[in-house]
Amino acid sequence: MIHILFILCSLLTFSANAAVQDFCVADLKGPESPAGYSCKPAATVTVDDFVSSGVGSAGNTSNIIKAAVTPAFTEQFPGVNGLGISIARLDVAVGGVIPMHTHPGGSELLLVTQGSIQAGFISSANAVYVKTLKKGDIMLFPQGLLHFQVNAGGVTAVAYASFSSATPGLQILDFALFANDLPSKLVEATTFLDDATVKALKAVLGGTG
Amino acid sequence: MIHILFILCSLLTFSANAAVQDFCVADLKGPESPAGYSCKPAATVTVDDFVSSGVGSAGNTSNIIKAAVTPAFTEQFPGVNGLGISIARLDVAVGGVIPMHTHPGGSELLLVTQGSIQAGFISSANAVYVKTLKKGDIMLFPQGLLHFQVNAGGVTAVAYASFSSATPGLQILDFALFANDLPSKLVEATTFLDDATVKALKAVLGGTG
Amino acid sequence: MIHILFILCSLLTFSANAAVQDFCVADLKGPESPAGYSCKPAATVTVDDFVSSGVGSAGNTSNIIKAAVTPAFTEQFPGVNGLGISIARLDVAVGGVIPMHTHPGGSELLLVTQGSIQAGFISSANAVYVKTLKKGDIMLFPQGLLHFQVNAGGVTAVAYASFSSATPGLQILDFALFANDLPSKLVEATTFLDDATVKALKAVLGGTG
Amino acid sequence: MIHILFILCSLLTFSANAAVQDFCVADLKGPESPAGYSCKPAATVTVDDFVSSGVGSAGNTSNIIKAAVTPAFTEQFPGVNGLGISIARLDVAVGGVIPMHTHPGGSELLLVTQGSIQAGFISSANAVYVKTLKKGDIMLFPQGLLHFQVNAGGVTAVAYASFSSATPGLQILDFALFANDLPSKLVEATTFLDDATVKALKAVLGGTG
Amino acid sequence: MIHILFILCSLLTFSANAAVQDFCVADLKGPESPAGYSCKPAATVTVDDFVSSGVGSAGNTSNIIKAAVTPAFTEQFPGVNGLGISIARLDVAVGGVIPMHTHPGGSELLLVTQGSIQAGFISSANAVYVKTLKKGDIMLFPQGLLHFQVNAGGVTAVAYASFSSATPGLQILDFALFANDLPSKLVEATTFLDDATVKALKAVLGGTG
Amino acid sequence: MIHILFILCSLLTFSANAAVQDFCVADLKGPESPAGYSCKPAATVTVDDFVSSGVGSAGNTSNIIKAAVTPAFTEQFPGVNGLGISIARLDVAVGGVIPMHTHPGGSELLLVTQGSIQAGFISSANAVYVKTLKKGDIMLFPQGLLHFQVNAGGVTAVAYASFSSATPGLQILDFALFANDLPSKLVEATTFLDDATVKALKAVLGGTG
Repeated sequence: MIHILFILCSLLTFSANAAVQDFCVADLKGPESPAGYSCKPAATVTVDDFVSSGVGSAGNTSNIIKAAVTPAFTEQFPGVNGLGISIARLDVAVGGVIPMHTHPGGSELLLVTQGSIQAGFISSANAVYVKTLKKGDIMLFPQGLLHFQVNAGGVTAVAYASFSSATPGLQILDFALFANDLPSKLVEATTFLDDATVKALKAVLGGTG
Repeated sequence: MIHILFILCSLLTFSANAAVQDFCVADLKGPESPAGYSCKPAATVTVDDFVSSGVGSAGNTSNIIKAAVTPAFTEQFPGVNGLGISIARLDVAVGGVIPMHTHPGGSELLLVTQGSIQAGFISSANAVYVKTLKKGDIMLFPQGLLHFQVNAGGVTAVAYASFSSATPGLQILDFALFANDLPSKLVEATTFLDDATVKALKAVLGGTG
Repeated sequence: MIHILFILCSLLTFSANAAVQDFCVADLKGPESPAGYSCKPAATVTVDDFVSSGVGSAGNTSNIIKAAVTPAFTEQFPGVNGLGISIARLDVAVGGVIPMHTHPGGSELLLVTQGSIQAGFISSANAVYVKTLKKGDIMLFPQGLLHFQVNAGGVTAVAYASFSSATPGLQILDFALFANDLPSKLVEATTFLDDATVKALKAVLGGTG
Repeated sequence: MIHILFILCSLLTFSANAAVQDFCVADLKGPESPAGYSCKPAATVTVDDFVSSGVGSAGNTSNIIKAAVTPAFTEQFPGVNGLGISIARLDVAVGGVIPMHTHPGGSELLLVTQGSIQAGFISSANAVYVKTLKKGDIMLFPQGLLHFQVNAGGVTAVAYASFSSATPGLQILDFALFANDLPSKLVEATTFLDDATVKALKAVLGGTG
Repeated sequence: MIHILFILCSLLTFSANAAVQDFCVADLKGPESPAGYSCKPAATVTVDDFVSSGVGSAGNTSNIIKAAVTPAFTEQFPGVNGLGISIARLDVAVGGVIPMHTHPGGSELLLVTQGSIQAGFISSANAVYVKTLKKGDIMLFPQGLLHFQVNAGGVTAVAYASFSSATPGLQILDFALFANDLPSKLVEATTFLDDATVKALKAVLGGTG
Repeated sequence: MIHILFILCSLLTFSANAAVQDFCVADLKGPESPAGYSCKPAATVTVDDFVSSGVGSAGNTSNIIKAAVTPAFTEQFPGVNGLGISIARLDVAVGGVIPMHTHPGGSELLLVTQGSIQAGFISSANAVYVKTLKKGDIMLFPQGLLHFQVNAGGVTAVAYASFSSATPGLQILDFALFANDLPSKLVEATTFLDDATVKALKAVLGGTG
């Protein structure tokens, strides 16, 4: 019996050496590569690198859009680094909205866990796909396409968005257009919006130029 | 103004032509390739190809393992085909268990939405990562590694498992060993289980040989 | 010498059989998969499947945006199918503009071959990257991010955009918002644009709802 | 003639600069990313980084399973880093066995070079694929699926397993269940094995809990 | 006990449905995609789709190069379709040679199982990596780079080349230059070989033009 | 209104954190991984990391091949790192030639912008695809296959080659055979060229051995 222990321990040593790429918990202080962050040394990884409570609490929706997004992407949840998956929690109060946006880096699968949400996306072929979802419904938003979610019921809606990337990114349309220093004349020339509209939204969102 | 309409319609035609790979809703009757199923013609795709209520209802846990798995993989939810994401619902009654298993094709991100679940996985390096999760907690299970979930509370637990693949697959250990025609002597030789144990489990699970 | 001929012919037969995936010229009538179109039989492929003159002629810019896009994506140039590359020609007359848009499926590398173009993109972090390009300059637009090009000189500008995908897709912002049946109230709720602006642009671009 | 030398040397300089990703020999002391280890500086790479004799010698099978595994994965053979391939040698003495296991990170192609091996795998659909292989036979084991090899002849069997990954990983079932600190009650609850069986195997394999 | 059987059978049904992408045995008569051939229906797949004896027999080296290549790529061994791995057997008699060639689609890992082989490759940076290998040695040839193998001993050498692709392809330099209808003047202009050399080799190898 | 500003700024913070993988401008001094170079810190990235004038000027063709290649790969244009695209400029004077070569790491899409070029490639199946291109024509060269370009007109030809990789590599056949220390006898044995030819070309190209 000591023999089996011996040989299996030998195998175990081999196995341990070979295991380096089961996972790659992000070392957020280390160098990044196009494939993601550097890996935390395996010897220092614990179960807590794979568990998070961050999406368990409601975000604060006491604001004008009456909504909140709480992500668990690589930055917030380093365990997903390199695994091609992540998640975010959406809280959308009555009358609230997740504004038109895209995720340049991944597709989204939304699961409604409370309330009702009207959601939609527009394809490259300019087809519109809109549906009102109830608790337990799921909806897909393919990578890079404009989409949105609005509360469609009488209670705060809660949903979880899973992504096919650890870093799906998020580009909110109004931010991209009105909350930075992109010159108004370029916004106007490339969106056909008039100067008054652009400047009004820039004023609200803190944009300059 | 008619001009802008004209040119944009021209662009629209171009755009529509270029849009073929925004998504590829599976035609489950068409040929499969290593990359997934054939695509349903885009002209016949509707929002209902991207929405499902299948994971909205509790599975039937009135059975001896007191648990149920309800998947929305390509076969059940053709919209995910080729998008690198899918989801499944787990219902685990009090005392219930999702037996030891792997997903050969993808990593899993589990979200507990009701009750409490004790979950764990074992790495290639033979490290054990176990944690008891409460509502709102998430836990990662890297691709291909053995893992399990058991109810850890006093009420039925509900959880949603997202996957980094539209076809993550599922290999339940006891099925692989005891619920098919893999000869008992091969099971015994390769697992070190004794003949009585193997035959007893084969009897329960319907295995032969 | 006849022997070397014989053996090399044998090797040649082997080589020919093994060559199936050098390329996969699209059979646009065949089934599509998530990886692209079906392959035209290799025996019917000729050099003309790998050559195109489609981007050699100026597009018609006699329209209100004074610009034209001429793509050579899989639909127009089946040889690129599966090879992860494609190209499009941009003609932008004086005062012309390629409106704000994204390519959900690939990154773009723009090369100016005539005139001058002011181009820019906005990152997920909401940083703005704008530059005026002259003939011979190149500029990158990472996958999925909003970007635009406007003529910045006194002559028609010509540029070629290469993509890291055979089907990069194209989502023009104004089309997505105003040229389809996405209900005005959803556009307004998710973009913070006012009803008058939305309806005016819908009128111009042919949108309904 | 000096001119051709000059221009070709210029091209050569260019070529050398562009060559960085022909290969990426692992610097095992450098940072790891999800795509593998950091690259050793190209200037220090020699042919010995691409050659190994490690799988040329028989492993020691004088143990109770009468088998040995000798890998040439990234850890043992840094040249494979990032190239999507690796190899391991199996020695299986008469009566020996490579226990039930999976490779979470890659598919395996086994080549028998001496003796006879009975091998098999079980699919996600629970189909069993078993075959007795003789010298010169090859057999495939798709990624992540449980499989095994046992000596089926009267002499020591030797086989070489190639993998579609530089770090395929290795999870030996008995190790995962019985050779670590996974609590016995969790093993029992998730495998339906009885307490006596679990504790007996834990005793043999050095498991605790 | 009947209950566990029932529920596990339910799970089994699920599992079977989910298993579609464990593997994709090529249907060589079906459509090809950029990702490989169409899949044979899973119900008709047997263990013989995953096993082959084709590389078990020596190739015929009674020819002027005194060598033979016996592949098990997708065309010869449909089970590898989509799995990113394949293999070929090399027989190189005394004085024999595998001429300078590349594999455009994959990296190669060579294992010598009999005799001695001198092998080498040239990198993009024009570095030369040459080594004489004995039985049991392995050597890497990164994707797309020119390489060769010659018998370096007094007995027929046998080696097995594994590839990181099911369709690595094979481009033999002399074939590409001299065994087709590429006009001699183009060969000469692009290789700096003189007309007499090109025409002599074209004569031997059956090239025209 | 201050509220919308507040919440959107909160979202913006989130968005900025999530943006890490929009792009990964190479830090050429940092560690490399199989996926490319380390990323320059996002805070130090400017638009100039995404713009280059390097391919805007004609290369020097006053040499015996009467041609020049000016690349914008990762080394010269760090912005492409990880984005799967790059470009190079070809200048080919009258009578000039880009010698037979391969790109081991990517497919090429050539665009002629001035003059005329006769170009061709040879497939693994040894089929020859040759065409004379005029200004505005494009031609594909699939990954890893031997190809060439020669001036086919009466003026200097200019072309831009886009690649499906940020580091496509470049292996010029004559360099690989005659401009390094690969022993002449190995060149001769593996190419069937005679000793005089090999030594003459080695003399011209600076090869030794």
